[in-house]
Amino acid sequence: MHLLICNDDGIHAPGIAALVDALKDLGTITVAAPDGERSAVGHAITISDPIKCRPVELAGAAQSYAISGTPADCVKLAVYGLMERRPDLVVSGINLGPNAGISVIYSGTVSGATEGTILGIPSIAVSINTFRDPVWATAAQVARVVAERVLQNGLPDETLLNVNVPNLPLPDVKGYRVTRMGRSRFTEVFHRRMDPRGNVYYWMDGEMELEKGQSDTDVQALEADCVSLTPIWFDLTNYSALPRFASDWKDV
Amino acid sequence: MHLLICNDDGIHAPGIAALVDALKDLGTITVAAPDGERSAVGHAITISDPIKCRPVELAGAAQSYAISGTPADCVKLAVYGLMERRPDLVVSGINLGPNAGISVIYSGTVSGATEGTILGIPSIAVSINTFRDPVWATAAQVARVVAERVLQNGLPDETLLNVNVPNLPLPDVKGYRVTRMGRSRFTEVFHRRMDPRGNVYYWMDGEMELEKGQSDTDVQALEADCVSLTPIWFDLTNYSALPRFASDWKDV
Repeated sequence: MHLLICNDDGIHAPGIAALVDALKDLGTITVAAPDGERSAVGHAITISDPIKCRPVELAGAAQSYAISGTPADCVKLAVYGLMERRPDLVVSGINLGPNAGISVIYSGTVSGATEGTILGIPSIAVSINTFRDPVWATAAQVARVVAERVLQNGLPDETLLNVNVPNLPLPDVKGYRVTRMGRSRFTEVFHRRMDPRGNVYYWMDGEMELEKGQSDTDVQALEADCVSLTPIWFDLTNYSALPRFASDWKDV
Repeated sequence: MHLLICNDDGIHAPGIAALVDALKDLGTITVAAPDGERSAVGHAITISDPIKCRPVELAGAAQSYAISGTPADCVKLAVYGLMERRPDLVVSGINLGPNAGISVIYSGTVSGATEGTILGIPSIAVSINTFRDPVWATAAQVARVVAERVLQNGLPDETLLNVNVPNLPLPDVKGYRVTRMGRSRFTEVFHRRMDPRGNVYYWMDGEMELEKGQSDTDVQALEADCVSLTPIWFDLTNYSALPRFASDWKDV
């Protein structure tokens, strides 16, 4: 088996080392990750600039590359330019911080797995539900369980698995739940400042608000100390809205 | 009415001027757009860097801002930090080049409208089906028709309208079609080069391949010289895959 690992926290992030360590005896590991943090880049790709790529050493990986692009760039470049054969699985993570609710669409970690899926390779994204004091061992063990299953059973066409793991010791995790992406939004605050030359700039800050009255969501699974498994795809069509649109726009 | 206009080609792109001109008598126009090109940035946001913002003059707009961030940043900052009242409509574009098929997930133009939708504001994205010699007047006229309808009828919850316009004189456009996002992928080629100091870099290049045997897609509407209207949302859950996952993961 050949596994491709990427992330959005950068090649030197501890989450990637934990992932390589957990998956290394499943097959040959290639790591292709950004040369620095690329959080919240969404599904950005680099088409107007050159993409720099240099080999680095990473314990447990057969080959590793630090890449000046986004997570989606890393997966594309690895598959089309760096790996001698096509990977059997793409694993993106382990992200420091959950990718649940609306965060999914801003997530570089998820976009790495989305890119793998677009290229027809079974792909998973793994995130840990904390921004500090992560229990990497739990998320790494969960990644291992999920990776083995996906290698064995595959995934539905065009669908990746978005995995969010509670930040708890493994025995305290209450199980796995198949979930949907929770409805939520960020309420942003922009802090307005002035640089020493009088130019205005802003820092974006915000909090995620969850819509009330939902069930079976990724956010709720985490709140219940469960691993959340969400099948994600990249067809953004709102199929349920098609009939209304068809009738609304008949007369144009 | 208050309209917010953004794009991903930058504040000085001709597509934004065409859009302002077409919409200016529908209400008060605010333009918040990147200070340079931000194509293919997907739904990136800027959380690790400050966002610079300076007022600029743009004919037809009550206020205009050149912003150092992504299209999604521009919409967030305009709504939460720049506009005195919430806009009634967000229009993103006119993008030079189609945003149909898999391009939708890489598109900065669509992400501007997606951000508006997340914030609860009716939003549309408008793109023209060419990379050279654009007939702006046609796309601008279509944007006007669609904007008026959306202001009048609204849009379904959580749903934006992704509009792609053929690059033809208006009388040659064959009508409007409500479509879904076409199944396609980019087949990438990476051109490997070396800089004068011996460092390897790559240029990403590629072509979109359309899956065969589809109907009712955005790409096909454009091929038939029709305006394509696709209802797009941001819930990436693959609902049709949920039952299979629920049974596959019952025993974990």
